[in-house]
Amino acid sequence: MHMRVGVIGGGQLARMLVPAAIELGVEIEVLGEAPGAAAAIAVTSIGAADDAQAVLAFARDKDVVTFDHEHVPQAALQQLVASGVAVRPGPQALAVAQDKLLLRERMAALRLPQPVWARVDSADDLTAFIAAVGGRAVVKTPRGGYDGHGVRVVTAAADVADWLGAAPLLAEELVPFRRELAQQVARRPSGGTALNPLVETVQRDGVCAEVIAPAPRSAGRVADAAADIAVTIAAALEVTGMLAVELFETDDERLLINELAMRPHNSGHWSMDGAVTGQFEQHLRAVLDLPLGSTAPRDDWSVMVNLLGGPADGDLDARVPGMLAQHPTVKLHRYGKQPRPGRKIGHVTASATELDEAVFQARAAAAFFSDPPVQS
Amino acid sequence: MHMRVGVIGGGQLARMLVPAAIELGVEIEVLGEAPGAAAAIAVTSIGAADDAQAVLAFARDKDVVTFDHEHVPQAALQQLVASGVAVRPGPQALAVAQDKLLLRERMAALRLPQPVWARVDSADDLTAFIAAVGGRAVVKTPRGGYDGHGVRVVTAAADVADWLGAAPLLAEELVPFRRELAQQVARRPSGGTALNPLVETVQRDGVCAEVIAPAPRSAGRVADAAADIAVTIAAALEVTGMLAVELFETDDERLLINELAMRPHNSGHWSMDGAVTGQFEQHLRAVLDLPLGSTAPRDDWSVMVNLLGGPADGDLDARVPGMLAQHPTVKLHRYGKQPRPGRKIGHVTASATELDEAVFQARAAAAFFSDPPVQS
Repeated sequence: MHMRVGVIGGGQLARMLVPAAIELGVEIEVLGEAPGAAAAIAVTSIGAADDAQAVLAFARDKDVVTFDHEHVPQAALQQLVASGVAVRPGPQALAVAQDKLLLRERMAALRLPQPVWARVDSADDLTAFIAAVGGRAVVKTPRGGYDGHGVRVVTAAADVADWLGAAPLLAEELVPFRRELAQQVARRPSGGTALNPLVETVQRDGVCAEVIAPAPRSAGRVADAAADIAVTIAAALEVTGMLAVELFETDDERLLINELAMRPHNSGHWSMDGAVTGQFEQHLRAVLDLPLGSTAPRDDWSVMVNLLGGPADGDLDARVPGMLAQHPTVKLHRYGKQPRPGRKIGHVTASATELDEAVFQARAAAAFFSDPPVQS
Repeated sequence: MHMRVGVIGGGQLARMLVPAAIELGVEIEVLGEAPGAAAAIAVTSIGAADDAQAVLAFARDKDVVTFDHEHVPQAALQQLVASGVAVRPGPQALAVAQDKLLLRERMAALRLPQPVWARVDSADDLTAFIAAVGGRAVVKTPRGGYDGHGVRVVTAAADVADWLGAAPLLAEELVPFRRELAQQVARRPSGGTALNPLVETVQRDGVCAEVIAPAPRSAGRVADAAADIAVTIAAALEVTGMLAVELFETDDERLLINELAMRPHNSGHWSMDGAVTGQFEQHLRAVLDLPLGSTAPRDDWSVMVNLLGGPADGDLDARVPGMLAQHPTVKLHRYGKQPRPGRKIGHVTASATELDEAVFQARAAAAFFSDPPVQS
């Protein structure tokens, strides 16, 4: 049993790994981009994730290295492996989460359901694709996108003229979907997996806003299909740690793979409070090749609402007492970040026996942190 | 809302405050006795709790100072208050947890139920007390005792001859009790309180071994009496933070006050996993004068078992995989301490709808960390 884990990247995912590490008795050290990171309490080195020397120096005395994000270049990952560090998930798996074109190719090879897509190398390619899918398409830069960045809905190649110079791009049909779902699975290097309940994710402006666990009206066929997809991907790509598969549920009741994340994921934050084993504890267990914990929900329903942006006056602290006074059963998680428009600065989770109650509690609690301020 | 909390003492209670601080977005810094403390991840200063200069230097930039233990001398506490630091709980309250004779005097003044007791200044005093309570008595050193240290059952004054030179001592009747209970309450400086469920505590060799939450067969009169006692003490002593009242339930169904702790307490560890608001989060809310969280249990029964001593070979890590594999619903908490006979090195908590199941799961999981090793 190896017990010193290094995390590359000091954001909120690294921050939320810390409590789980403390409980399991695992030493955790973080490579942060700059002082004052969300995970500052565990930051032991400062360096950029794309600085191979910084990453190698940080990893030297770690038993296992894992990630806050997917932005470590393949060259650095390969050097880490060559130097004998256990990198989890490994470079081959991470490559598929780093490159959306590679993702589409691998999912196609696995014959898994996904939107109609094409690799686009030129304006002519894209014009042809747009025509083939009915006049509108989604275009994505294969690398570096997150939270809606690097994604555009287009009707003509000219809409991404600025991107075409750096082709290839990924073009996809605009999927007519009923809702978005996410299926998480944890996988150990020795092969064991543990599935989380399928959840519904609500996006606003390309950013995750709310998660409902479990996804309403998903028992049976839908949940089984999502589970099969996630386990197939985890095994085929030999993912280690948490894998999140973002899915579209189409108007005609198919599930199509949208994107993958190979780390704890916003769609799983509810599990910290709402499941027997939270996703951060599960990620540590998985990357350390420890037996995985029960993923059973602790309540009938849990609803997570992201705190986005925060109050315009920047005084997040001032909003806390009112929220806690009105919502004694809601769990607050702050990320140690200064408010800024659109930024994820925390989340709240409410659990209840009735979905309506959990939704109300979580949304009302989150509203304390938005503008105009809610009176209490 | 003040947000930088300093904790004096770096033991497991300080360690378990850290995850709660991360979640609430509270900065936490710890004054540890030596490098490698259980709370090492948050230790920012090294110094002894009875070194007034070290304590004052540590407290200078904190908004609130609280405690891992009760061993900070009154002189240092008074200096802290004089220097403008919010000390929670305050010196007057802490004095009652620091001195068992003072405790008995204050409880008597409040007319709260407690064992028959006497202040003993000489062998003659003790001989007379032993005769008055039937030939056997419990003698305690007023200060510095913990986990059974500083407590002896005696039949003659000669049994504590070594202590009488440092009199006064506290002598108490040997209470004929059916079981031990503990009642926790959180209190804010502005006066709000939140009661935890009454729990049953099982001691072995003077050390807490197991806790059952809620205490079986305690609904109604017993729980009401325990709650009244705890709230009365918290208000009268103006305790801030968590207060634990250890109680004897006598064979004739009275509740008698045994001891007090003014900090998170072993009897409340179950609440980290078994209640909506764990005692460490609640302690932070209370000392920061934030609204208190719901103390509702999340399951019908939770059972906490301490990991005492650990395996003789000292290799605690090696026992973890077997335990996790057999008990996927049990929550493990390690304290980052090396195994040593009798030492508290962690705890496990199991929750279930049937008490038998929670007891079995928690005890079986804990057995993995004792000798002889359990085969898995």
